Amino acid sequence: MQSKPEHAATAGIVCVGLGPGDPDLMSVKADRLVRQARHVAFFRKKGRPGKARQAVQGMLAEGAAEYAMEYPVTTELPVESEAYVELLSRFYDDWCLRLAELARHEQVIVLCEGDPFLYGSFMHLYTRLRERGDVRLEVVPGIPGMVGCWHATGLPITWGDDVLSVMTGTLPEDELVRRMQAAEALVVMKVGRNLPRIRRALQRCGRADAAWLVQNGTTAAQQVARLSEVGDEVCPYFAIVLVHGQGRRPEAAW
Amino acid sequence: MQSKPEHAATAGIVCVGLGPGDPDLMSVKADRLVRQARHVAFFRKKGRPGKARQAVQGMLAEGAAEYAMEYPVTTELPVESEAYVELLSRFYDDWCLRLAELARHEQVIVLCEGDPFLYGSFMHLYTRLRERGDVRLEVVPGIPGMVGCWHATGLPITWGDDVLSVMTGTLPEDELVRRMQAAEALVVMKVGRNLPRIRRALQRCGRADAAWLVQNGTTAAQQVARLSEVGDEVCPYFAIVLVHGQGRRPEAAW
Repeated sequence: MQSKPEHAATAGIVCVGLGPGDPDLMSVKADRLVRQARHVAFFRKKGRPGKARQAVQGMLAEGAAEYAMEYPVTTELPVESEAYVELLSRFYDDWCLRLAELARHEQVIVLCEGDPFLYGSFMHLYTRLRERGDVRLEVVPGIPGMVGCWHATGLPITWGDDVLSVMTGTLPEDELVRRMQAAEALVVMKVGRNLPRIRRALQRCGRADAAWLVQNGTTAAQQVARLSEVGDEVCPYFAIVLVHGQGRRPEAAW
Repeated sequence: MQSKPEHAATAGIVCVGLGPGDPDLMSVKADRLVRQARHVAFFRKKGRPGKARQAVQGMLAEGAAEYAMEYPVTTELPVESEAYVELLSRFYDDWCLRLAELARHEQVIVLCEGDPFLYGSFMHLYTRLRERGDVRLEVVPGIPGMVGCWHATGLPITWGDDVLSVMTGTLPEDELVRRMQAAEALVVMKVGRNLPRIRRALQRCGRADAAWLVQNGTTAAQQVARLSEVGDEVCPYFAIVLVHGQGRRPEAAW
């Protein structure tokens, strides 16, 4: 790699899944792309460093140009409101144009936490860029955050014929209950202020006692607790609630 | 790493998730552990090279000892039968003892495709070893095979509030239908001879036309097709059927 000049990187946009948080869990490919990058874009909430940017701290080459794509709104407006949709549409449209222009002659690395195709913001740029069709596009898979979280509990998530359902805590309570009842193993993402409703739904399914809450899985700030041991006080949006499947397995004979 | 003698690796058992198949998608940590390994164990079907072993071809150090853990039975007996359960129990019990003995003074790397805690065979050794409590145990997460498969289709798997359900094609048809109806995005694993039943279940849910079949995702042998374009003829056990969610998103304004 040393012999290849940096500017030889193929022009285009490469979205790199960074995995659950621990840089050692990034893929070999992601690690290489991030370290070689000359142009690095990432989403962040206004006024925050950005979780994706923080995940690559110390890995970027000197002089790499950074593009912070700051959400114009996050939880200040209801996601179904016209104002929210319009703001977000314009935001993604604008960055799509800007990155596409840059990517005509340069390789632009877009950092994404977890896996980019599982509830990732990059998907909104991806569909727009694909529609344009004039930019080379590549997406590098990553270990989803939820995988890091079930490893943080030290317990397998699915056995035998267990069904695993992954849902967002933003669903109405009755919907949460209906979906939870159709699966043995559960992952609830986007927890934050939805925690009391998620807990009530789990209680209605008789599964609250088996649930875990994981924050910042695989990072130095990792916190793992039984859901029954934590209150409904402030909980980060990116925390994950888990219920492990208990399916069929050949038991030890000793 | 060159200055650290190989035998300095901490004794114990480390299960390494290898990801979906492409060695470039292994984690930095997995890559390092595999290359440094002196003792490497992996599951395989009798008479086969083993998918996990194949995934690290060319990566093992010279002189690394290999331990092929050959399933005494795979699909020859019904998984619920007493004979199957007894054979498998003894198999896992035996390898647990053997690896635990070896791991008293050596580091043993167990190779696992995808993520070890998502329907992985290592889980059966893991619970036994944990129960013993006398061996240092570590599990390294990997990108699940299904993640590699949805990337192979070039389409995001979940949008907005989509629920993603992951199930095995071994479920009875009515169960498949019930579970499929409770999710927007679907992943059906363990396809093989279950394909006709999976197809019927998808048809009953009106979702067969939106389904994809992915074989060997992210490897050189990758095959991606609309399910409607493939017949019910021979399909590998490790193929995956996918239906992408189509949830809420702020559309492009242009």
